[in-house]
Formats: sequence, C-alpha cells, structure tokens
Amino acid sequence: MATIPDAAASPVAVEQIRTGEQYIDSLRNRNLTVFLFGELVAEPADHPMIRPSINAVAETYDLAARAPELATALSPLTGERVNRFLHIAGSADDLVRQNKMQRRLGQLTGTCFQRCVGLDAIGSCHSVTFDIDAERGSDYYRRFIGFLKRAQTANIVIGGAMTDPKGDRSKSPHQQADPDLFLHVSKRDDKGIYVSGAKMHQTGAVNSHWLIFMPTMRMTDADKDWAVVGAVRVDAPGLTYIVGRQTNDTRIVDGGSMDAGNAQFAGQESLIVFEDVFVPYEHVFMDGEWQYAATLVERFTTYHRSSYVCKTGLGDVLIGAAAEAASHNGVESVSHIKDKLVEMTHLNETIYSSCMAAAYRARPMASGAWLNDEMLSNVAKHNVTRFPFEISRLAQDIAGGLVVTMPSEKDLQNNEVGPLIRKFLQGKSGVDTVDRMRILRLIENMTIGRNAVGYLTESLHGAGSPQAQRIQIARGMKIDDKKQRARHLAGIAETRPKNA
Amino acid sequence: MATIPDAAASPVAVEQIRTGEQYIDSLRNRNLTVFLFGELVAEPADHPMIRPSINAVAETYDLAARAPELATALSPLTGERVNRFLHIAGSADDLVRQNKMQRRLGQLTGTCFQRCVGLDAIGSCHSVTFDIDAERGSDYYRRFIGFLKRAQTANIVIGGAMTDPKGDRSKSPHQQADPDLFLHVSKRDDKGIYVSGAKMHQTGAVNSHWLIFMPTMRMTDADKDWAVVGAVRVDAPGLTYIVGRQTNDTRIVDGGSMDAGNAQFAGQESLIVFEDVFVPYEHVFMDGEWQYAATLVERFTTYHRSSYVCKTGLGDVLIGAAAEAASHNGVESVSHIKDKLVEMTHLNETIYSSCMAAAYRARPMASGAWLNDEMLSNVAKHNVTRFPFEISRLAQDIAGGLVVTMPSEKDLQNNEVGPLIRKFLQGKSGVDTVDRMRILRLIENMTIGRNAVGYLTESLHGAGSPQAQRIQIARGMKIDDKKQRARHLAGIAETRPKNA
Amino acid sequence: MATIPDAAASPVAVEQIRTGEQYIDSLRNRNLTVFLFGELVAEPADHPMIRPSINAVAETYDLAARAPELATALSPLTGERVNRFLHIAGSADDLVRQNKMQRRLGQLTGTCFQRCVGLDAIGSCHSVTFDIDAERGSDYYRRFIGFLKRAQTANIVIGGAMTDPKGDRSKSPHQQADPDLFLHVSKRDDKGIYVSGAKMHQTGAVNSHWLIFMPTMRMTDADKDWAVVGAVRVDAPGLTYIVGRQTNDTRIVDGGSMDAGNAQFAGQESLIVFEDVFVPYEHVFMDGEWQYAATLVERFTTYHRSSYVCKTGLGDVLIGAAAEAASHNGVESVSHIKDKLVEMTHLNETIYSSCMAAAYRARPMASGAWLNDEMLSNVAKHNVTRFPFEISRLAQDIAGGLVVTMPSEKDLQNNEVGPLIRKFLQGKSGVDTVDRMRILRLIENMTIGRNAVGYLTESLHGAGSPQAQRIQIARGMKIDDKKQRARHLAGIAETRPKNA
Amino acid sequence: MATIPDAAASPVAVEQIRTGEQYIDSLRNRNLTVFLFGELVAEPADHPMIRPSINAVAETYDLAARAPELATALSPLTGERVNRFLHIAGSADDLVRQNKMQRRLGQLTGTCFQRCVGLDAIGSCHSVTFDIDAERGSDYYRRFIGFLKRAQTANIVIGGAMTDPKGDRSKSPHQQADPDLFLHVSKRDDKGIYVSGAKMHQTGAVNSHWLIFMPTMRMTDADKDWAVVGAVRVDAPGLTYIVGRQTNDTRIVDGGSMDAGNAQFAGQESLIVFEDVFVPYEHVFMDGEWQYAATLVERFTTYHRSSYVCKTGLGDVLIGAAAEAASHNGVESVSHIKDKLVEMTHLNETIYSSCMAAAYRARPMASGAWLNDEMLSNVAKHNVTRFPFEISRLAQDIAGGLVVTMPSEKDLQNNEVGPLIRKFLQGKSGVDTVDRMRILRLIENMTIGRNAVGYLTESLHGAGSPQAQRIQIARGMKIDDKKQRARHLAGIAETRPKNA
Repeated sequence: MATIPDAAASPVAVEQIRTGEQYIDSLRNRNLTVFLFGELVAEPADHPMIRPSINAVAETYDLAARAPELATALSPLTGERVNRFLHIAGSADDLVRQNKMQRRLGQLTGTCFQRCVGLDAIGSCHSVTFDIDAERGSDYYRRFIGFLKRAQTANIVIGGAMTDPKGDRSKSPHQQADPDLFLHVSKRDDKGIYVSGAKMHQTGAVNSHWLIFMPTMRMTDADKDWAVVGAVRVDAPGLTYIVGRQTNDTRIVDGGSMDAGNAQFAGQESLIVFEDVFVPYEHVFMDGEWQYAATLVERFTTYHRSSYVCKTGLGDVLIGAAAEAASHNGVESVSHIKDKLVEMTHLNETIYSSCMAAAYRARPMASGAWLNDEMLSNVAKHNVTRFPFEISRLAQDIAGGLVVTMPSEKDLQNNEVGPLIRKFLQGKSGVDTVDRMRILRLIENMTIGRNAVGYLTESLHGAGSPQAQRIQIARGMKIDDKKQRARHLAGIAETRPKNA
Repeated sequence: MATIPDAAASPVAVEQIRTGEQYIDSLRNRNLTVFLFGELVAEPADHPMIRPSINAVAETYDLAARAPELATALSPLTGERVNRFLHIAGSADDLVRQNKMQRRLGQLTGTCFQRCVGLDAIGSCHSVTFDIDAERGSDYYRRFIGFLKRAQTANIVIGGAMTDPKGDRSKSPHQQADPDLFLHVSKRDDKGIYVSGAKMHQTGAVNSHWLIFMPTMRMTDADKDWAVVGAVRVDAPGLTYIVGRQTNDTRIVDGGSMDAGNAQFAGQESLIVFEDVFVPYEHVFMDGEWQYAATLVERFTTYHRSSYVCKTGLGDVLIGAAAEAASHNGVESVSHIKDKLVEMTHLNETIYSSCMAAAYRARPMASGAWLNDEMLSNVAKHNVTRFPFEISRLAQDIAGGLVVTMPSEKDLQNNEVGPLIRKFLQGKSGVDTVDRMRILRLIENMTIGRNAVGYLTESLHGAGSPQAQRIQIARGMKIDDKKQRARHLAGIAETRPKNA
Repeated sequence: MATIPDAAASPVAVEQIRTGEQYIDSLRNRNLTVFLFGELVAEPADHPMIRPSINAVAETYDLAARAPELATALSPLTGERVNRFLHIAGSADDLVRQNKMQRRLGQLTGTCFQRCVGLDAIGSCHSVTFDIDAERGSDYYRRFIGFLKRAQTANIVIGGAMTDPKGDRSKSPHQQADPDLFLHVSKRDDKGIYVSGAKMHQTGAVNSHWLIFMPTMRMTDADKDWAVVGAVRVDAPGLTYIVGRQTNDTRIVDGGSMDAGNAQFAGQESLIVFEDVFVPYEHVFMDGEWQYAATLVERFTTYHRSSYVCKTGLGDVLIGAAAEAASHNGVESVSHIKDKLVEMTHLNETIYSSCMAAAYRARPMASGAWLNDEMLSNVAKHNVTRFPFEISRLAQDIAGGLVVTMPSEKDLQNNEVGPLIRKFLQGKSGVDTVDRMRILRLIENMTIGRNAVGYLTESLHGAGSPQAQRIQIARGMKIDDKKQRARHLAGIAETRPKNA
Repeated sequence: MATIPDAAASPVAVEQIRTGEQYIDSLRNRNLTVFLFGELVAEPADHPMIRPSINAVAETYDLAARAPELATALSPLTGERVNRFLHIAGSADDLVRQNKMQRRLGQLTGTCFQRCVGLDAIGSCHSVTFDIDAERGSDYYRRFIGFLKRAQTANIVIGGAMTDPKGDRSKSPHQQADPDLFLHVSKRDDKGIYVSGAKMHQTGAVNSHWLIFMPTMRMTDADKDWAVVGAVRVDAPGLTYIVGRQTNDTRIVDGGSMDAGNAQFAGQESLIVFEDVFVPYEHVFMDGEWQYAATLVERFTTYHRSSYVCKTGLGDVLIGAAAEAASHNGVESVSHIKDKLVEMTHLNETIYSSCMAAAYRARPMASGAWLNDEMLSNVAKHNVTRFPFEISRLAQDIAGGLVVTMPSEKDLQNNEVGPLIRKFLQGKSGVDTVDRMRILRLIENMTIGRNAVGYLTESLHGAGSPQAQRIQIARGMKIDDKKQRARHLAGIAETRPKNA
C-alpha cells in the first residue's frame, strides 16, 4: 500500500501507487468521516453507491499504464514519468495531450473521473506561488514544489476545493454574518494554521488522498484571513464529507447491472466541512496575500474551463449509443436519423475544437507553467453549457420513448413477464433484446440518469456558471480595438487602427 | 364505490365517482396483474411508487368539483355536466377550455395527469365510428355512444392504448414474423372478438378503469385483423401490466418527503400485454375496416398533439421554482436572471399560443365532434419537443449546481451533519434552508428527476416523435400554393394565384 | 378623385375611393414636400422608386373589392361595409379576420403594405379617447369618432406616427436640450394647436392621406406639452418628408423588371418633420393628459405587435420561392431540402399561431373596441424578431450562392453574354433559365434586398425592439403566482395557490 | 509594372509586384473581356463598382509590407520571403499564421479579399500533383512547382476556379446534354490542351493575374476529359468574365462616400466562360487522371473551409460597429446590450477556435504540404454557415431600425433637409451625427448591404453549402468506434474498444 506523503518527512520514501487496483486499496482503512443517507459510511471504498466513482478514478491509473504517452509525462521535478494528473504543463503540447487524455477518459468511463480539479489546482498554484514569492520574498513556491514532488513520487490523487458556500452573495467574506461561509484561518500557532468553513459540491473529494483548498473569488484587504491556500490530507482531523445525492444513485444498490445504465462508472460530489483543520506551514501556499486571490481564481478557471473537454468523450459515448439504438431499431440509415447523428457530432467537435485551440494557444507564465488561452477557454466552456443539452435531446429523440418507460431488470428476470418483455421489446431481427435494453439504459443514464448529473448539470455549473464565462468574455473582448476598426472602415477615423 | 360500466348490462345503473378520494377507492380490489420490479403488485392503489401517479389522476376529479366551468362540460348524451375528460368537444370553445384545464392541471400536479390519451381516444373514435357507419352501414357509432354514455354516468377513467411494439419497422403488421407485434384479432366467436398483442409505454393504464385500444398506423387490406378498435376493462382477463421504471422512482420509497422533489404527484407508463382478451361486440368499434386506421390515427394525433399544452402548466411551475430559487439566492433582480425567466416564459407562452390557436381554429367533423387545426396542432407539439428542454436548462442555470449535489434528507435529519447542512446551505438572510432545499429538489424532479420523464422525454415522444410532426407539417404545408405566389411576385406567372 | 375629409366641413360629402387605381390617383397633385436623394420629388405617386410602395397600399383597396369578407367590415359608425384598415375591431373575430387579411396581403405583395400603423392607431385612440372622456369629461372621443367616420366614408389611408427621435435616451421629453426631439405643442390659439418635432421611420407616410400622431412613451406631469395626439392631413403646411434609403432601392430605376426581384411591390419609411403644423381642436384627441400616454402606447403596441402576422404572408412567399428554386435545381425531393422547407413552415406557422391566439383571446375595452391578449401579442412579436431570420437563412441555403452572384438583367439581354448566361445558368431540364433567375432574384429581394428591409430588420424593430417585448413579458408573467405553485408542489406552502 | 510569368520562358526574370499600388497598376491594360450591366468594361481596374474589390486585394500586398511575419513566409522554392497567399504551408504553424492573417485582413477590409481560393488551390495542387507523379510517373509536380516559383517571384495574384455549372445534378459530366456544363478538354495538340466550359461565382477572378482551374467533384473513367487541372492567364484568349450583381453594388456609383457603408472595400464574384482556351502542357497539372479528382476536391475544401476564418475578422468589425452604435445611443452599458455584444463575441470566437484547432492539428502529406484537420475544418465551416447570421441579427438589434430607414447622404448634403437630419438623428450628446450615420451605414453594409453578400450568403455557400460539410462530418465521425464504446459501457461488449 502506498504511504501518503507527509510534510514532516521530506523527501518521503514512499511506495508508489501503480495500478487502479492499488489505488482502490489505498483508499481503505482511512477512517474518513463520510456521511451518506444520514449514516456514517464504514468503508467508502466498498460502498456500492460510492464505488463506481472510485472506479472512474482508478481508470486514470490504468490508462497511464496502457497509454503512457497520453496519460503520463516526464516530470522535471522527479526526472521520472508521472501521471499526467500530477504534471505541471510545461508546454502547449502538454495541454494538448492533457485534452486528449481527458476526452479518452470520458470515452472510457462515460462520466466524470474527478481528477481535473486537482490537476488544475496544482497548475494554478504553481505559477501563483511563484509570483507571490517573486514579489514578496515568501517561501510558498518551494513548499508547493516539495509537496508536489512527494505527490508525484507516491502517485496519489490530489483533489481541489474551491467553491465556498458564499452565504449572502452581495457581501464579501469578512462581511458575512458567519465567517465560516468562506473557508478561513480560524487560528494559528507556530507550527501551522487551522482552517474552518466548507467547500461545496467537491468533485471526487472522498476518493482523493489530499485536497488543495483555494479561495473562490476576488478579495480585499479585510478578507486577509480568507485568502488562504493549502493542502490537507483527506483524512485529516476536523474534516467531514457529506456525499450529495445524484439522480438514480440507488439503482446500483437495487441489484443487477442493467438499470444503472453504466454499472461501472459514476461521478461524485460532496460537501466538505472544515472544523479547525490543522495545516502545517510546510503545506500552506498562500496565507493572507489577498491580492493574489483573484489571480489564482482566474488561472484556475482558465485551466478548468478547458478541462470540460472531457464532455466530448461523454459525447462520443452518447453519440455511439444513439447510433446503436437506431441500429437496433433498423433505422440507422434513415435520413433524419443520420442527420441527427451528424448534428450531435458537429456540436461535440465544436466543443473539442474550442478546447484544443485554447490549449494550442497556451502561453507560459513566469513559473514556467503554461496556461491555456483565456478567451478560448471561456468560449469552450460556454459551449459546454449549451451543446451537451442539445446532444442529449437528440440522443433521446433517436432512442425513443422506451428510454423512460422500460421495465426494470427484475421484471426481465421474472419468469412470467420476462419472456413477454423479450418478445415485445425485440428490435430489428438479430438484435438481442437485452442488448437493446442495455443501450437504452445507458442513454437514460447519460441524459436523465446518474451520469446526466455530470454530462448536463455539471456542464452548466462546473468551473463557473454560464454568466461567469460571459463576464470573462466581456473582459477579454477588446471592444475598443473592434470599435476603432469599425470607425476606420466607416470612414470616420482617419488613422488606421493599431495592429493594422 | 363506483361500479364500472359493463356492456352486458346496458344501460347500467351505476353509482358515480364524484371525488378524487372516491376515485382512489374505485381502484382497489381489482385484482389487476401488475408487475413492478419483478413482483406482482398486491394492491397498486396503495403501492408507494404508484400512488403519486394515482394522486395526479385524482386531481382531475377534484378540479372538476372546484372549477366546474373549467373541468366539466354539459354532455349532450346524458344531459348532465360530466368531467371534461369524458366529454366530446362540441365546439372550438370546448377545446379552448380543455386546453385551459390541461394547463391548470399541469400547474397543480407538475406532472402528467394521464387522462389525455383517453380523452383524445374518445374524441377520435366519435367521428371515425360515425364515418364508418355512414359509409358502411355498420353499427359502431351506436355502440361507442352507448359505451361513452355509461362511462360519463359512472364518471370513470378511460385510458387509450395506441403504440404497438412494431418489431421490424420496415414491415407492415401482417408481414411481421410474430403477429403479436401489432395488436390483432386472435380469434372470434358469436359473442365477440379476442385480441392479442401489446401496447407500449401506456400512460396511466393501471390507474384507468377502461382502455380503448386503437391501431397505431396506416394499414392495408392484408392487415385487416390488425385494424381493430375496442374497449376493455382494465381488469379484464388476459391483461398484464408491467410498470416502467422512471428516473428516481424509488426516492418516494426511501422515506421522507424531500428527496422526491414532488412527493405527491408523478406520471406512469406501462407495457400492457394482451393475451386473448375477450371483447364483446358491443365494445368493438372497428373490426377490419383497415381503410379507417390512418384516419383514426391522424385525428387522434391531431387531438393529442394539442394536449401537450399541459406542459405549459409544468413550465409555469418550473419557472416559478427557478424564480424562487433565485430569490433564495438573493439574485432575483440581477439582469441575467430576469432575462432568463423572461426567456423561459416566452418559450412557454409560445407553446401555449400554438395549442390555443389550434383549438380556436377547430372545425366540426361529420359526427359533430370538433377537431383542432391539424397544422397548428402539429406545430404546437413540435415546439413541445424543443422548448421544455431549453426551459429546463435555464431552470438549472438559475438554480445552480446544488440541484445535483445536495445532501439527502436523511443527512439533513442526522444530528451530526444536519446542523452543518443547515448552516452551509443557508441562502439569503431570512430564507429557511429547508425551503431552499425543497425548491431545488423540485427543480431536480422536473429537470433530471422523476417528472423530467414527463416534462422532457415524453414531450419528445408522446403523441409522436418529432419526425412524425414534420411529416404532417410537410403534408399540410400547401407548397404548390406557396410556389405559385412566389412565381407571381417574381414576375413569372401571369395569373394571380387562387385565393388572391 | 376622392376629396380628403376636412374637419372644417363636418360631415363632409366626399366621393369615395373604391379601387387601387382611384387610390393612386388620389395621391397626385398634393404638393407634398417629399425629399429623396437630396431632391424635392415633383410627384411622389409617379416616382419609380416610390411607386412600388404605393402599389402595395393599392392592393389593400383591391383586396377589399375581391374578398370583402376578409378585407372589409360592417362599420357601426356608417352602417356600411368599410375597408378593414379603417374598422375598429368590435370582437375577437374581427381581430382574427384582420390577421388573416394581413397574412393574405403579405402573400400578395411580399412586402410591407404600410396600413397597419394607422389601423392600430385608430384602434388604440378609440378606447383611450373614450377613457379620457369618461374620467375627465373631455370631448376627444366624439371628435375622434367624427374623424373616423369621415375617413371611413371617404375610404382614405390613415397613417400612424409614433416614434420620436428621443435624443438622449436617459432623459424625458421636457429634459431634452431641444424640445423638438419629441413632438410637442409649440403654440396654440383659439382654433387649435401647432405641433413641432419629428417622427422617425414612418411607414407609408407619403402614401397616406392623413396621419395620426401619438406620444411614444410614458410621460410625466412636466411633459404635458408632449402628451398630444391628433390628426393632420399629409399635405398640411409645415410637414416635410425625407424618404429613407432602402437596400437595392435604385434597382427599380435601373430599367428592366428582373433585378429588383419584386418589381411591383415594396415598403416605405420616412422621416417626417413637423414645423408648427396646425391642428384644429376638432382633430386633437389628447392635449396634455400625460397620464394616458403610457396607456395609449401599451394598447397601440399590443395591437401592433400582433400586426406582424403579416410576416407569415411574406414567409409563405419565401418558402414557396425556396421550394421553386429547389425544383429548378431538381433537388426538391432530396431529404435535407424537404426538411428545411418543413422547418421554415414550422417557424412560420409558429408565428401565425401566436398572433392568432392573441386575437382569439382578445377582450373588450370600455369603448367597445377589442384588444388582443397582451402577453401573447408580445410573444408573437418576439418570435417575429427571430424566426424570419432563420427562415431567410434557410431560403438562401436552399437557393444556393447564385442568389448573390448572378449577372444582371442587362447582361442577360446583351447579345454576346446573354446566350452564355442562358446556357450556363440552365437548371433542371425543362426549366426556363429566366424563370430560374427571377425566382433567385425574388429570394435575394426578400433576404438581402429591398424587401429584406421589411422582412428582417423591420421585423426586429417595428412595433418595438426585442427588449421592449421582454419588458412587457416580464410585466405580464405573473411570477408570484408561479412561485406560489412551485412552493406548493415542493411541499413548502401549506395552502393551495389561488386559481387551483 | 510586373510582368506576368509565362510558361514559355521558364524561369522568367520578372519585376516583382511590391505594393498594393503596383498591384493595381498591374491590372491595367490587360484587355480583359469583362461584362457588367450588359456592357464591356473598358478598364476594370478603374471601374468604380469593381474598384473596391481591387482595393481589398491590394490590402494583401500592403499588409505583407507592414506585417511580414504575418503575411509573408520564407519560400523553400525561391529562398526568399513571399506573400503568404503564394506559400505552400510547410507546417501547422504556417496554417496558424495563415488563419491569423486571414482574420486580420477581414478586420482591415470588412469584406472578402478574394485570395483564399487561389491559396487553397496551390495548396491542394502541390500534394495532388506530387501523388499523381509518384504513382503514375507523370510530370505534373515539376510543372506545378515551376509555375508556382515564377508566381512567387513575380508576386502575382492567383485565383482558383472550381465550381462548374453542373446542369442536371443527377448526372455526371459525361452524361450531361451539353459537355460544357463541366469544364473539359475540348481539343488538344502537341503544344497543349484547349478547355471549354464555365466556372460559376468565381471570387476575385477579374482581379487576378492567373487562374488555376480544377474539377469540382468526384469523377469516373468516362469523365476523363473533365478531369483536368491547369493554369491560365486571366487575359488568355477565349475567357469572358461576367461580373455578378451584388446587393447595393451601385451605391458606390451614386456619389458620396457614406451610403456605400464601406466605400473602400468590397468583394467580387463572376461567371467565367471558357471557350477553347489554350493551356500549354507546361501549365497542365492533371490531364485525365479522374481518380484524383475527388482527392483534389477534398483537400481543396479542407483548406478552403478553414479559410472562412476570415469571417471572424468581419465579425470583429461588426461587433465593433454595434458597440459604437450603442455608444452613440448612450446605451452601451445597458445590460441587454452588453449581453448581446458578449454573445456576438462568443459566437465569433467559437468560429475562430474551430479554424485554429483545424490548423494546429494539421498533418503533412507526401509532398510536404500540410493539410488542416479535415473534421475540424468542416466543423469550422459549418459554424460559419450559422453564426454570422446570428451575429448579424444581433448587430441590427443593437443598431436599431435606422439601419434601414436612414436618409441618403444627398439628403444630408441638401441645404433644406440636411440640417433637419442633423438635428433629428442626433445621438447622445457629443456624438457627431454624421459619425453616427456612417456607423449605421457600415452595419447596413455588412448585414443587408454589399458586404452582407460575403458575410452572410457566401458564408453559407462558399467552400461548399452546409450539406456538403454534413456529408464530410458523417464520413469522419467514426461511428463504429463510438458504438463500440457505448456497448462496452452498457455492459454488452466484453472487450474494451481499441484505443482504450
């Protein structure tokens, strides 16, 4: 079993997690405080409702083994190839490969594999700690690099935690009635700080080994105590996880493998409560430098909005499922069906192109980390808030009403009605009725079931809701340059615009 | 308890169902063969998962009592006011009121109240039986009127059953490998016929008292045995019901009232299998007149596509829920939020206007029944296949990610984490966190939960999938007249078009 | 020739305009001050660029003769049938017929026939003068009815004038640097008032006999002088008309009949300048009652937004032209072409249904005039700001690039290149190349030519820009009722909503 | 003046065109047979209606001087920097820079600068001639390189000609009633071939020095004579050009600089007729190798669909114009206006991202030329067939109705009405009315005027109509791989998909 890196022992000689199976083992016996349906979960790694989300993370390990050029990278920190989810992008090409890996994992799991928040957290901390140190003479970058190096060596899962509860949205952190509505330093001593508060809808937190917490928005001088970044072990004292309900989450518990639609993989989000959680200074990466909160958020969202390229992998699966359903109905060559499949593909590839362009047009920051193009990253995510909904609607259109009216697997297994179901749900000659039902359940899963949570709602709100992208697009749209060009062509401005 | 009308005793003196409660009582002790999750359901009326769908139907009784001008009509058959769901539209105004009633019931239940199929079945049978008799000298209209009169008197629920399994879609009924893939006359004697086959995704079948079965498409001479219309008691021997699974269907069983989102109301669809079900001639309304199959289907779909006006009632609820969620977040007056609520309303009212115009422009048929405008009814339904998806997306946009990441009600009730949830899910000052959670659960219910089945997927496929409307629109679009007008204005055609 | 009614002689015995030809005659010799391309137009009625817009108005006379049930109505004022454009809607049925007439005229002309503003002006003045008198004891209604009766008898064209220049949009009329930026009473004597200012983009003004001017927005006590309504002869001293340029307006002057696309019909908009124009009190219908300005605007826009039903008539022509172009190319039965024609029709009929529903759901006001449903009228117009653009795009898609690259008619007539054009622009065998070119020119005319002004841009801005409808939709959306329904279904509100 | 390269003298020592002015000079005295409005144009270079299109091409020369890194490239053929429009992309970076240059030129001209067809023609001929030679031992590549080298040295404009009239679209070239409906070898001798036929809507042909003609679609063995590629001088005997009419094309002739909207720049399309035009073998690059026709078309369209990135430059201008118009009205900070500008930008950048991703993901062909990613190039162009229409609609929405109702420049200059126009068209305080009018005319120009031809209609049809992209997307969508992934996740397929 892998030993999780500890700041007290640096560098740590740890065994390394090498496979998905080893990863799953590493999650056991951690005594996490995880609540689900009002009960403390004894062993999350073995809870049937949580397990599919763990499987999705495990796939990130196995892919690294199967396709190292895609899912690993040579770390300048360790001199070894490391899992790409622990690698700081050192070139546009790194970000391009990352996009490809994310699409592939979307194809492989049909769900959220949960590691992008952590990946984008280390990406943004790398440059921000570097910048703070450069201007302030602080020591954050060294600490961060030390942490990251140990994480790479042990090959652990780092989760990121950003979204605070926010309370009254018209008030800044220090103005809130309850200081805990934004995560903050509740006390400190000579060894480290203690943080309290909460982080909402945290992707894959329970399945991670460490969490990096970050501020969620621009701050002011008075918000100093809330301007805090650090890393904590997932099993640190004071941490409580309340796993969120998902649509059809209990289907996996019902028994059988069909009704879940995708029995193997799912996403996971939870509410994390911090109650005086200790963070030794060696794991503190920002501590009061409120001026950098906005920078960190902007870099993080620029990375993270591009990470929604993963949805094109889910789109591939859903397009494939719709085509398969059409084939089961014997209508795959009907013109309106083909046309819908083309439209789905067009929308899916449009998202992909925006994400890829954002990666290719990345630029280096002072720390050497490369950051996606901000405008295109926002444009990409904004398309993600729209197109999966239309792809999903078209998938349901092709699949037909059975997606939501089909009998349960238990009915199928019943001696009396099972044969009736097989008889009447028969598709085109030669198609196995059970195969047909399985494909329809997968479409249900992705459009109105458990993984629709990730494919649709999370596509809206993850990495910032649509309006957040619009604000960034407005900031980057260079309207004065555009106006000047219009004036010039309209015959008003004498002088040619700059960059003419 | 109401006695269900029986053809053998005609006219039947029956007690009348008067209230929702009496209706629910009337469903008990019928010994239906209903399967759910692989088990025979002892008493569907009391099954917690089925009950919300019964409640929705019950609301059609209670509304009739509360708002008789809306939900009842004066029957020329009985001389009494009858539930509008049992009334043959005798004017455009009847159809207009019907639309209003359907919207109101959508507002009241937030789901499918399941009676429109039956309503539209009697509407189309009225004129088609009349037409067949007029041309063939048959006796169907008298039988049908007798049946309907008894149904009105007893105030029962009539379900409609149309969609056959269809098997190989490139083949007509008589060409199928298995004759049961379309419902057909399997044998006959001097008392009546026996029918076998199945009807798919039948709305509210288990909650009905009688079913009218109808052919699902155009037929040929060789399909005579499949050209059959009749009425059967829901508890007739040979009928088996397999209730379909719905998203989040088991949440209501989990205990508590929150996680279901809408604990009181839901829809229902099932697969009905007919095995040599006897239908006395007095309840047979078409028997081999294959030439009228297409007419019946066209009239039925013209009625039924307009019935999707109910979704504007669901839209009202969802718009209200989104506005309430925005209010809980303290952002209701933010411009992009207001703009989204306006857009949702615009789309919802566009659907309403199409349905209303179709009703106002209704025309009488030979039997005296009035039929909605066919073009506008198809246009209305086609908008229903699109706009609820966008309304739903905007509702999720306004509501935020909590819609899919919120802890369960059991967590809220837990002594340890309940207070944490209340603390961190607090909205704007003064908002009860539980109210906030309830509204978000309602939005989940309608956009990615149990009632999304009806609001989204059924909006796509009910009364015909999008392509079915496009075919009808193509048929009605009078392209030659339009071309002639273009030629005239282009200076080609000398003569003015007709109707100039 | 018809004598235009004059307040000084009341009642006036006038000859009546009966035909389009008589109407055109009636426009001559009026000594209007009309400017076009920097020159005073000697006789607008015979100006080749203006004439097509006159032809379109003339069609409203000829249709009345050909189809009196559609384009005339029995006036309670005169006891005779009058042109429907001079009739006050006295029932929902009147508004329904009006919609049908407007669609028909759109089909007949393929452009804006310019009489709806006047029609909607008399409709709103009818009820508002009635209301003012009822509350204030004034004499406006009698005056207005007198004016209208004379207009009906003489069968003249009344134009409406509403949109002021507005200047600084953050200021109300009395706050403007220049009082003329809103039309206002500049002086008065015992015979009448004098008004100064301007009205922008006035449809068909030059082609009218009389104009009714109205305030353009809500006013305050200090804006009394701007709260003025009255009727003036188009040739009254002090009026100047500057005709606006339209896309491709000069093609009609180039010679030939092809390049214009629609050589016979076009729209017209002009800037009207008022310089101390005298209005005798008998023709003043509001004079300082600023409280009614908003009412008048709201009623006018409710009428006028529904009047955009005319665009469905243009849509019919464009759909027909696209189908004809497809037929010329031999591709009319190709599936994607058919699908696009269906989509165009669906969008066109959606607009129609909204307008028709608004008419059917009209309600009477105190004066006895009936007003369209406000919500649906706004919804209808809002769809008009979107769908014609997509219909236009699809028409161009079907038509192909020749729409914008085709040689001129003069090239076609040239001995050298004419035969080459005929040879190479040949469509499917049997199609006359000239016919093909004419249809493409018509599509150009409606999508990127002179009548695109009316079909597209005016569809955006006429009767209020998109945002104006959104504001009205927001006002009428009954959000509190919707919220209450949501709370009830979410299990929050104990009590059932009103209207449950 | 530059001497145009001639195959007879190879290599040719020519003077080089260096500036836009020299380019314009080079067009004079060529004795082209150009028809416009039924007349032979004496000197196209000085024709006021043609000149704006020449100015747009001239800008490609001047930009090369001002921004060589953008608009020139180092040619491996000459060892010198050459205009990028004559450069074969030798890397993905070349294509990326090309995209940037095209966007910049769109920004600079607000129209079609006409050189992309030629650029994409040389790109595709480079690899296809190489491939034919490799397989057939022919000599085309050497000839082509020779031609290109001379063109680079002389720095001329090469146009491309692809679209044949096609006649009956259900027939291949050899089946047409008239062989000229596709360009073909009409005779041959020992010096070269003679070609006859026509090319439709040819961009910038009259403004070019040489044309490369290419087949327009897949061919068969029987179509050998039509499978021909070659280069001809624009002034070769037997060539006739008939310039197409454009919306508002004559405004530039009316006098004044305002009404044209963009007085300096425009596009150009013409019908080119070939009558036994001689092509010496040295300039023949395909001669009967019908198997390569489809390859050539596919490579050409893959290049050319990406070239529509230029429309993002036009989009920049239109967004700027809309923002400026809003500013003139004093409403730039109104939320719905800002929101529309953001939406326009989002759509514009989505197009850009698709084009850029297609460039970055280019791959080398055997000849060493790099080709854009085919799927993404098609996706990019498909977005171009949609988004400019919505951007245009939003620009008109922001600009207001004046876009189509504004008086002419001549009215503005008139002593009587000019002051009235200045008074009443005054925007926000401090804005020059003439500036306001100029911006509105520019918006008219791009949305419903001369340059809307290029921004809208050409965006639909250039480089293939929408359906052409859908066919290519269907071909590239790897549906079997997607289906396999779906089956795997649905629990059907045992084995993991390839590339898992």
